[in-house]
Amino acid sequence: MRAFEVRESFGIDSLAPIELPLPSPGEDEIVLKVRAVSLNYRDLLVVKGLYNPRISLPFVPLSDAAGEVVAVGERVRRVKVGDRVAGIFMQEWLAGELTESKGKSSLGGGAKGVLAEYVVLHEDGVVKFPDHLSFEEASTLPCAGVTAWHATIENGIRPGDDVLLLGTGGVSVFALQFCLLSGARVIITSSSDEKLQRARKLGAAHGINYRTAADWEKSVLEFTGGAGVDLVVEVGGAGTLTRSIKAVRTGGRISLIGVLTGASGEINSPPIIMKGIRLQGIYVGSRQMLEAMNRAVRSSGLHPVIDRVFAFEEVHEALKYMESGSHFGKICLKIS
Amino acid sequence: MRAFEVRESFGIDSLAPIELPLPSPGEDEIVLKVRAVSLNYRDLLVVKGLYNPRISLPFVPLSDAAGEVVAVGERVRRVKVGDRVAGIFMQEWLAGELTESKGKSSLGGGAKGVLAEYVVLHEDGVVKFPDHLSFEEASTLPCAGVTAWHATIENGIRPGDDVLLLGTGGVSVFALQFCLLSGARVIITSSSDEKLQRARKLGAAHGINYRTAADWEKSVLEFTGGAGVDLVVEVGGAGTLTRSIKAVRTGGRISLIGVLTGASGEINSPPIIMKGIRLQGIYVGSRQMLEAMNRAVRSSGLHPVIDRVFAFEEVHEALKYMESGSHFGKICLKIS
Amino acid sequence: MRAFEVRESFGIDSLAPIELPLPSPGEDEIVLKVRAVSLNYRDLLVVKGLYNPRISLPFVPLSDAAGEVVAVGERVRRVKVGDRVAGIFMQEWLAGELTESKGKSSLGGGAKGVLAEYVVLHEDGVVKFPDHLSFEEASTLPCAGVTAWHATIENGIRPGDDVLLLGTGGVSVFALQFCLLSGARVIITSSSDEKLQRARKLGAAHGINYRTAADWEKSVLEFTGGAGVDLVVEVGGAGTLTRSIKAVRTGGRISLIGVLTGASGEINSPPIIMKGIRLQGIYVGSRQMLEAMNRAVRSSGLHPVIDRVFAFEEVHEALKYMESGSHFGKICLKIS
Amino acid sequence: MRAFEVRESFGIDSLAPIELPLPSPGEDEIVLKVRAVSLNYRDLLVVKGLYNPRISLPFVPLSDAAGEVVAVGERVRRVKVGDRVAGIFMQEWLAGELTESKGKSSLGGGAKGVLAEYVVLHEDGVVKFPDHLSFEEASTLPCAGVTAWHATIENGIRPGDDVLLLGTGGVSVFALQFCLLSGARVIITSSSDEKLQRARKLGAAHGINYRTAADWEKSVLEFTGGAGVDLVVEVGGAGTLTRSIKAVRTGGRISLIGVLTGASGEINSPPIIMKGIRLQGIYVGSRQMLEAMNRAVRSSGLHPVIDRVFAFEEVHEALKYMESGSHFGKICLKIS
Repeated sequence: MRAFEVRESFGIDSLAPIELPLPSPGEDEIVLKVRAVSLNYRDLLVVKGLYNPRISLPFVPLSDAAGEVVAVGERVRRVKVGDRVAGIFMQEWLAGELTESKGKSSLGGGAKGVLAEYVVLHEDGVVKFPDHLSFEEASTLPCAGVTAWHATIENGIRPGDDVLLLGTGGVSVFALQFCLLSGARVIITSSSDEKLQRARKLGAAHGINYRTAADWEKSVLEFTGGAGVDLVVEVGGAGTLTRSIKAVRTGGRISLIGVLTGASGEINSPPIIMKGIRLQGIYVGSRQMLEAMNRAVRSSGLHPVIDRVFAFEEVHEALKYMESGSHFGKICLKIS
Repeated sequence: MRAFEVRESFGIDSLAPIELPLPSPGEDEIVLKVRAVSLNYRDLLVVKGLYNPRISLPFVPLSDAAGEVVAVGERVRRVKVGDRVAGIFMQEWLAGELTESKGKSSLGGGAKGVLAEYVVLHEDGVVKFPDHLSFEEASTLPCAGVTAWHATIENGIRPGDDVLLLGTGGVSVFALQFCLLSGARVIITSSSDEKLQRARKLGAAHGINYRTAADWEKSVLEFTGGAGVDLVVEVGGAGTLTRSIKAVRTGGRISLIGVLTGASGEINSPPIIMKGIRLQGIYVGSRQMLEAMNRAVRSSGLHPVIDRVFAFEEVHEALKYMESGSHFGKICLKIS
Repeated sequence: MRAFEVRESFGIDSLAPIELPLPSPGEDEIVLKVRAVSLNYRDLLVVKGLYNPRISLPFVPLSDAAGEVVAVGERVRRVKVGDRVAGIFMQEWLAGELTESKGKSSLGGGAKGVLAEYVVLHEDGVVKFPDHLSFEEASTLPCAGVTAWHATIENGIRPGDDVLLLGTGGVSVFALQFCLLSGARVIITSSSDEKLQRARKLGAAHGINYRTAADWEKSVLEFTGGAGVDLVVEVGGAGTLTRSIKAVRTGGRISLIGVLTGASGEINSPPIIMKGIRLQGIYVGSRQMLEAMNRAVRSSGLHPVIDRVFAFEEVHEALKYMESGSHFGKICLKIS
Repeated sequence: MRAFEVRESFGIDSLAPIELPLPSPGEDEIVLKVRAVSLNYRDLLVVKGLYNPRISLPFVPLSDAAGEVVAVGERVRRVKVGDRVAGIFMQEWLAGELTESKGKSSLGGGAKGVLAEYVVLHEDGVVKFPDHLSFEEASTLPCAGVTAWHATIENGIRPGDDVLLLGTGGVSVFALQFCLLSGARVIITSSSDEKLQRARKLGAAHGINYRTAADWEKSVLEFTGGAGVDLVVEVGGAGTLTRSIKAVRTGGRISLIGVLTGASGEINSPPIIMKGIRLQGIYVGSRQMLEAMNRAVRSSGLHPVIDRVFAFEEVHEALKYMESGSHFGKICLKIS
């Protein structure tokens, strides 16, 4: 079977095809015939060696795959051959709180990636996905979908809440969909009027072009009558956090997810204290969260927003496309 | 000004008009010109002497009113003359937990009712309501609206949850609207196929006629693939609780609200224990809940479902109409 | 190896010794050399056929065992040979919410019991226990300890709370210890002044003899200045619930655990509603709760209260002793 | 009556005595004869003009006072003449969430301070304190006590949790007492071995001198077996936050309270995200929290730790003593 690995050095162009033996499952394991994978910003960092420079080369990257179960170990009970499943991001975070050891079980961070035609996973590490989703759509759920679900629904948004989303990447567009599903009102930023137009079409109440309105937090405050939003889904990181703190209301929350604008930066404590803000670090989520999300996806008939689907062999183009930042929603690879 | 009081004995027919002096506000009080009131099942019990037989006669009944502020005391800051406001059910439950003393501050339970052209309330005891609502619509919010909001949203429902509603009275229809707003799926029961039809039109996913399907909990289990619902909004009370316990999933919740089928009955403990069910008594809610609900009503443009509007003088007919159980949603009186 | 099984019919006297082959572990399993087991009221019901009459005979009863790991499967990572561990009550409830399938994985309910010299368990189904505990003490943790922890700490008690405990069985005495550990004040009932005396020695603030004070809820109200308690740990069930509802404050909670006084009874809805009471069914708890409890037991140096230790062969006497209700705390069997 | 005001310019030495008329209460107000006040670090900032430079001079500083009610308005019901009460920090934060307007109702921030022999407060803005406390002790509750309570108990600590406290100021020593009361284990830092010794005597499990162990987070990790603590009560602010983030476990929490080491600084996002840390800004707390704390103080018999009591006229020395940082616990003024 074919896979791609980052071979001799980090970098998109180091990704090279490799032929590997077909895997067979252990007692509690399943073999997944991968039909689609999706890209996350993390994958870009991993491949470029910016995520964890201690990863030893070569390695197969990517964390999110959907496909069919084609073989199961003798003790497997949760799924059966023929089931359409997606892998979960952290293979050992099934339920309850994140722990250090669960945090180390993520796919695609070095130890085990899914950019391959077949992967072996523990039966506990996969979930069936809703019937109305294609493999490409299902492949967007494990990381981006769960992160957005965790950052919004699990973080307690309610009908009538105002939520600020930064940009229109995979997590933000999922967050937009989940906010609308739960009756929240969405304000979204982008550097592109066209993307803002698309977000409004999906249901966003207000769009802010942060190129033309550099002080976008003022626009947020104005739109909310001076109060600020109940929640910010903060995918920007250090470069946007100060503005996000200004944009959130007293008693509001910030789901801290991303590092798109850099890993570290200045933080100002007094407004966090005096507004009683809660800043919650969000590192994807548990299988239980994925299952809860799947129920909502199923009953609402929601379809993830896919920007573009590349072929397996076009993985380099796909990663470069992500790097360009021109996408709206998710980027996938189809693996036939 | 005119009002109605329960005069010499309990009973709908004891309700009699009375002429009272125009009230004037204390330092922190406002005068509300009542433009509409709504009926709750509790009002029927109060008037008939079944709610609290120790209420001393005569008394003005009813708890829910909406109207205009026509006078304010000198220290009043929260509202001003001309504001369109509704009174809150428990005048002293502003935020935080219910306490015994807050519980005693309800309107219409004997001490102070709103079935009058003017009422005086503490400025803390009123809230402005969304502009898109009529006075009749606003008058449905304080008790039925807040109770339904508390029983569903404040009780943690999320997109993808299945919720069971019993009947199509004011609380259940509000609960239906709030469930849909927050992405939950609704199963509803009624004795009338026509009402089930209306509920489905509003968005209910499944309707069960409990006349023709006496074991309605089986239909609930079937519809949910054997799992049971995440939440039951239990307005029936003792007569339906045993079935509700069967209809709720392991780990599910029951919002216990009503006593429509009687105050006491048999309860079976083992399923509550072994399914880890949470049974939460819901006694309306706080002003903070009402304000949160109003935000959601405002941003979603939701309109309360009003079955019928009577004139002030038709209060007897209105109460008898409620007694008949033929309504779907709320019953109001217009007070010009 | 030796075990005891309920052989031809239900009943304590049907428990008979049996010689079984030494078990060997699967890939993910461990073999536990049982050094102590503890008895729960549930075991009495199981053995007498009152818990689940559909259990097929013969079967090995009991759920709670502590011992040493003497063999491990090749994939086992969580524990190693020589570790002192206890089994968890529901073998599949590791974290997060209770689900129907997790609920079916309890030990000692028919499928697999621990009244044996050796048992095989999945590696996920055991936890190391604090060093300062004997095997007998550790054997009390999985069911009674976790139930009490879940009913009090996981149910949100805080310093300054008043908690009512019913009786002085295993769960109640554990609850007493956990309440004291977290700064809550305890009121406890018993039919024996001597037991009340022991409870007071352990730190209970107030004891009520329900033989001499049949209306014990009045004594609870009096002791709390008329307010009622924040939490009742309700092990009595149908026979005591009505009084417990009277004894709890507005906004208070009841952890519903037991059926000592019967499975079903009359319940009165209005006080649950108007006091906004939360009734939470407690069915033991997850491994994560056991681990949290173990941390607290370890750092506080707490020792479970053991009433009496019987020998393996004295299991009949031990069960009859439990049946007599004369114990204070836990009853164990030592298995050498 | 006498008071002190910051007169012509900011600074401790600008504090000057003034003679004011005896105040009289409005309808809903009470007059408090102040018997003791306590100092908070905020008072130092306020007096020196570092807290809010827009405060208009002159103004009476300080937020925390305890004393006797000597007069009440005609509508006052919550307290009566002779009651021993303390003022609450934010006069309008009674319960529920912090809001912007509640946040502006704090005492001692410019509008109204308590460094006077008599103050007028709304009846809702005072609470009775436990009988076993002196006026000096009671004066420490409203800001430092509530802040520590909010940061620990309301933030969900449980028996067995490990909590890191920074320094031995008023909030940290209160937090130490509340942690012990709720069964948590405390690690505390100080620049003084003598203070560490005192903290250990009060019950701290581990003390770290951050002068001699500059990388104190390593000592925290070591003491917790590499895991990190469950909670950090972060009174240091920007200068310590990076170390605190290292010292907290995966899934842990940080209560962000103080700015002792400066208002702004560098923050590193990835560990917050990948450890799923929750950072909660704590701005004192509500009256409901104060009342919950008082219950715990009452039932446990806890006494606040007072370092030194100055006379009313020694306010300058008291503030300079606070500035020196040599205190352990609280600094009070007695007002006879």
